[in-house]
Amino acid sequence: MKRILFILTICLISTGLLAQQNLDFSKKVEIISPQINSDNTVTFRLMAPNAKEVKLQGDWMPSEGWITKLQDLQKDETGVWSFTTQVLPSDLYSYTFIVDGLKVLDPNNVYQVRDVATVMNIFLIEGGLGDLYKVQDVPHGTVARCWYDSPKLDSPRRITIYTPAGYEAGKDKYPVFYLLHGMGGDEEAWMALGRASQILDNLIAQGKAKPMIVVMTNGHTSNTAAPGESSKGFYKPDMRAPDIFSGDMEANFGDVIKFVESNYRVKADKQNRAIAGLSMGGFHSLYISANYPNTFDYIGLFSPAILPPANAASPMYVDLDAKLKTQQDNGYSLYWIGIGKTDFLFQNVVDYRSKLDSMKFKYQYRESEGGHTWANWRLYLSEFAPMLFQK
Amino acid sequence: MKRILFILTICLISTGLLAQQNLDFSKKVEIISPQINSDNTVTFRLMAPNAKEVKLQGDWMPSEGWITKLQDLQKDETGVWSFTTQVLPSDLYSYTFIVDGLKVLDPNNVYQVRDVATVMNIFLIEGGLGDLYKVQDVPHGTVARCWYDSPKLDSPRRITIYTPAGYEAGKDKYPVFYLLHGMGGDEEAWMALGRASQILDNLIAQGKAKPMIVVMTNGHTSNTAAPGESSKGFYKPDMRAPDIFSGDMEANFGDVIKFVESNYRVKADKQNRAIAGLSMGGFHSLYISANYPNTFDYIGLFSPAILPPANAASPMYVDLDAKLKTQQDNGYSLYWIGIGKTDFLFQNVVDYRSKLDSMKFKYQYRESEGGHTWANWRLYLSEFAPMLFQK
Repeated sequence: MKRILFILTICLISTGLLAQQNLDFSKKVEIISPQINSDNTVTFRLMAPNAKEVKLQGDWMPSEGWITKLQDLQKDETGVWSFTTQVLPSDLYSYTFIVDGLKVLDPNNVYQVRDVATVMNIFLIEGGLGDLYKVQDVPHGTVARCWYDSPKLDSPRRITIYTPAGYEAGKDKYPVFYLLHGMGGDEEAWMALGRASQILDNLIAQGKAKPMIVVMTNGHTSNTAAPGESSKGFYKPDMRAPDIFSGDMEANFGDVIKFVESNYRVKADKQNRAIAGLSMGGFHSLYISANYPNTFDYIGLFSPAILPPANAASPMYVDLDAKLKTQQDNGYSLYWIGIGKTDFLFQNVVDYRSKLDSMKFKYQYRESEGGHTWANWRLYLSEFAPMLFQK
Repeated sequence: MKRILFILTICLISTGLLAQQNLDFSKKVEIISPQINSDNTVTFRLMAPNAKEVKLQGDWMPSEGWITKLQDLQKDETGVWSFTTQVLPSDLYSYTFIVDGLKVLDPNNVYQVRDVATVMNIFLIEGGLGDLYKVQDVPHGTVARCWYDSPKLDSPRRITIYTPAGYEAGKDKYPVFYLLHGMGGDEEAWMALGRASQILDNLIAQGKAKPMIVVMTNGHTSNTAAPGESSKGFYKPDMRAPDIFSGDMEANFGDVIKFVESNYRVKADKQNRAIAGLSMGGFHSLYISANYPNTFDYIGLFSPAILPPANAASPMYVDLDAKLKTQQDNGYSLYWIGIGKTDFLFQNVVDYRSKLDSMKFKYQYRESEGGHTWANWRLYLSEFAPMLFQK
């Protein structure tokens, strides 16, 4: 009898009805949302019998000017609001509901990502590009959150390091890919929004990318770690722009390399170092590779922000043309630039390419559809990683 | 001009107004929620001018029977609903809003945890116990998510491993603490809900706990990893009870020990092994330590579920009394049992203690306030870890 009571009670806990656990009001009726249909349309559902209006905002939806055009959901007689999309290409997507003007996460979908101060639900459509972003039954790398010293900055600083499957058990040395986030990001961004560990696991398992270590830093020198992961506590994240043109990230990047090369089995030479980043991280990758001109053989600028303001005083930003000339003379295997056709930084990239062209500085150029989005940055990572360390 | 446009556009992105980024409807007015006031009361706020009723559900709130009594928020003339709590003791807390019957996460608080299929916001009150759960300016350990082989199970399986500050740079060998989750958990639970890495960082920095490696497994043999981290994809989590009395977790625990002792610098002897778990993990810790009777010198049962059903056929569950006798004869340094006074498993623990008493099997007993809650399990970890490896 006691055992039956135990099982019953466990079942009660599982429905969230015990005060000792946490209530879940979404469970009175079993709602499936999002439901990926067999034709790759997606049905969203929300139980909200008292709502007057439920809208959907998703990152695949068209926009008018800067603003996404929201999609209305329709209510049925049971109080469930729903909407089914058109067929969506295989990819990872994000969305939220807006209920009577209030942003509401889907209570039936626990899969979420944070972008700066916004939390969104995510879902994945398989059968194409999305398969690269999915955890597959392949050997998995290890993802470690560590802290390294950077004596001239507020330190220790948090860093995310991916080591490929087989690293622990083996004795091989590996090449290293430094992968930098944008202005709204931190050392979690490429993992959470960029699906970096899934992309690397899958590309390596398919034989399309070399096994490599991927190092994801925090590019904001005014923070030691992602929101919630430092002694600042649970503060409200924002865009902390003041540090982005200080040059401190670039000037102290040697501490990152030193930490990695002291603590991991790496091939510590130029041929086995790559650096790439998105937006602000593209800006960082440009200046770090130019200021350490014989350090990286592979450089990737993803939707890069390129030029610091004229009053940016750091020596990191001085004499860029001369630094690029030195980098050119030293040589490199790949200088890769990717940008979306509707990215607000498109013209910056046109200007930068003109500069490079006028110097006969060789680079590969990739122009994609879309704008300044994680969809593009995941795509660029998927295309860039296979080109690394193939010599 | 271009640079000014660039800065302006970056600012626009930071307010979430660009369609290329994700809209955040919460930002029209700057709302602070939750606000921890200087007297340790907490003010919650939600902008919802169209709502008829906004309620708060928090894990510190009183309950009637099984159900938490919800707290009403009051609306002001700007459409902001608010409520201020009584003074709360220093701890980590979780909550959600209920808006016109719909569970709504606080759009102004990005800090969340998932418990099975429920996502909740969290906040922390400093100045006491909560300080142990906070990231402090102390040396930090590394937290790695790895995959290990367990040939008789669906494998590889995901595992979370904490190594203390100094592990990478040093050459010392460390003791190992195996820390197991409950029926609703996985290899993320002790990190996300249990604040294990913060507790260990802080206790070690204060000299209250020995530096140790902490190993957090996934105790559900029907899953290889936490929801979203395996090839099952983004399925809706539930309580997957079918595997809990199979004995497979216990029978294959040797694979975990083998992985840890092959891949980390550990002291691989009984004196330097501890095992503890909460609820189902307490059950696992009891049976693993009894079935491997000369392996663990420190055993912790936190709010343990204790007896498998009579039809549980695994050899792991057979002859418990004889196994306990062997464990008793072999000796151990600490057998610790903690339970809350209102825990639904309280009587099970009374019965188990009677059994131990009748055998003169020595144990330490800790009875706390409250029930089957993460507040208790964090507390137990904070008290148990300092007792480990002190010989």
